[in-house]
Amino acid sequence: MSFGEASRVSPQGGGKYTAEVQPGWDIFGVTNGGYLLGIAGRAIEAEAEGRTVASVSARYLNPAGPGNAEIVVEPLKTGRTMSTFQAILSMEGKIVLTAHASLVDQVDGPPAALLSRGAPPELPRVDDCMKLVPGEDAPLPPPFAGKVECYIHPDDYQIGTASEGGPRMRGWFRLTDDEPLDGWAVVLASDAFPPAIFNSDLPVGWTPTVDLTVHVRDPRPRGMLMCSYSTRFVSGGWLDEDGELWDTEGNLVALSRQLALVPR
Amino acid sequence: MSFGEASRVSPQGGGKYTAEVQPGWDIFGVTNGGYLLGIAGRAIEAEAEGRTVASVSARYLNPAGPGNAEIVVEPLKTGRTMSTFQAILSMEGKIVLTAHASLVDQVDGPPAALLSRGAPPELPRVDDCMKLVPGEDAPLPPPFAGKVECYIHPDDYQIGTASEGGPRMRGWFRLTDDEPLDGWAVVLASDAFPPAIFNSDLPVGWTPTVDLTVHVRDPRPRGMLMCSYSTRFVSGGWLDEDGELWDTEGNLVALSRQLALVPR
Repeated sequence: MSFGEASRVSPQGGGKYTAEVQPGWDIFGVTNGGYLLGIAGRAIEAEAEGRTVASVSARYLNPAGPGNAEIVVEPLKTGRTMSTFQAILSMEGKIVLTAHASLVDQVDGPPAALLSRGAPPELPRVDDCMKLVPGEDAPLPPPFAGKVECYIHPDDYQIGTASEGGPRMRGWFRLTDDEPLDGWAVVLASDAFPPAIFNSDLPVGWTPTVDLTVHVRDPRPRGMLMCSYSTRFVSGGWLDEDGELWDTEGNLVALSRQLALVPR
Repeated sequence: MSFGEASRVSPQGGGKYTAEVQPGWDIFGVTNGGYLLGIAGRAIEAEAEGRTVASVSARYLNPAGPGNAEIVVEPLKTGRTMSTFQAILSMEGKIVLTAHASLVDQVDGPPAALLSRGAPPELPRVDDCMKLVPGEDAPLPPPFAGKVECYIHPDDYQIGTASEGGPRMRGWFRLTDDEPLDGWAVVLASDAFPPAIFNSDLPVGWTPTVDLTVHVRDPRPRGMLMCSYSTRFVSGGWLDEDGELWDTEGNLVALSRQLALVPR
């Protein structure tokens, strides 16, 4: 099932939508946060009259399995160039996530850069990276790994030791069957790789996302994404994970930042 | 008037609060976003039973002058270790900002770092930095500059040229009269300096914040803050500004990220 199909929403009127959170998009039974935000995003988009996501911040309140979801979208402001929405996705009466998003009119092609202090990560060819595939008899990689295509830099797929410049997790991303990317697929990509903190000597464990904020510069990138995620600060039970997503022509596609809990 | 006084809120029951957005906390007549978020934050805090801000994301919808504000706080989840709230601050019937915040129990002292890939910015002594004071006969520095104390690295206070490693804006921060810092003062500090993009050869102009997300690692830092803000990517009408806030003992106090519009 494609990401487009798996994130489909049905309008119920008055800004309410229903959706089916699909099985298999999970890590240890907990549905991936980028996928869930994609579902909320479809509902937001349906209210946005053709506008597309430029920025979204989501806060995750309760873990979710597969099943029926309800999304309530509220328009906060419709401006000349930007529309802002709030969405709350609930399952079984519990809030799973709450999101704020800013949507703008679509522009063709990647935006011209006036300033760029950065570059795509240096990645080996796709064939020389480690493709994540779900473990047959093991819980890791999780079932979710079969729903997207992540090819990880072999230097970073070292669990238990930081690579040079790490902890980080770099790699290629595309949807299965080369499904075209849109803004919500970019958001999905920002949460699709294993946590960068796995590439360190800290204990490997569940790192629940509290906040995920993604600023999308190009909501219709062509080709595969070149992604780089890194964690710089682990303190007080928190960790950050910053992501940069690029297209293969050197255009910045998105910046992401997560705040996650460190397992105690 | 102290930040504490200027951000005071009055409970009206049912999660509703009123506040007075004070004059003089503005830039060209538009009230500073960190200060406005501080007001919303006081209302959130009043509902949080002693918990303190660990993370907040705010989206700014309409510019605000001074005057009466109403804040509506809605609890989204009260957990064992964390409480999550939504707040909407409105003035004259228009939404000024909407915020999501996660609050946790207070811990004494800065949190121990398990991993730190970074360091406080190298700053000259406070006396050797440029103190921002409001222009007497000029619109810049703005009146807001008199409400907080920002001492800027002289290398970065170069409007129209990027400093080495720039565009960036580094400096010391404290509240006037050395008012003790709390989590919302840290949020204020994250939006108190001139935009880092001023330290570049791009046109200087109004850069309205669309999203401000601040992750606070230490909500009660002692002494002055050592701050560093930088912009790395300007494209498609957007710019990012990432901030790191440190205490003088080398502990990370907060990470901030803004998404702002580039003037066209």
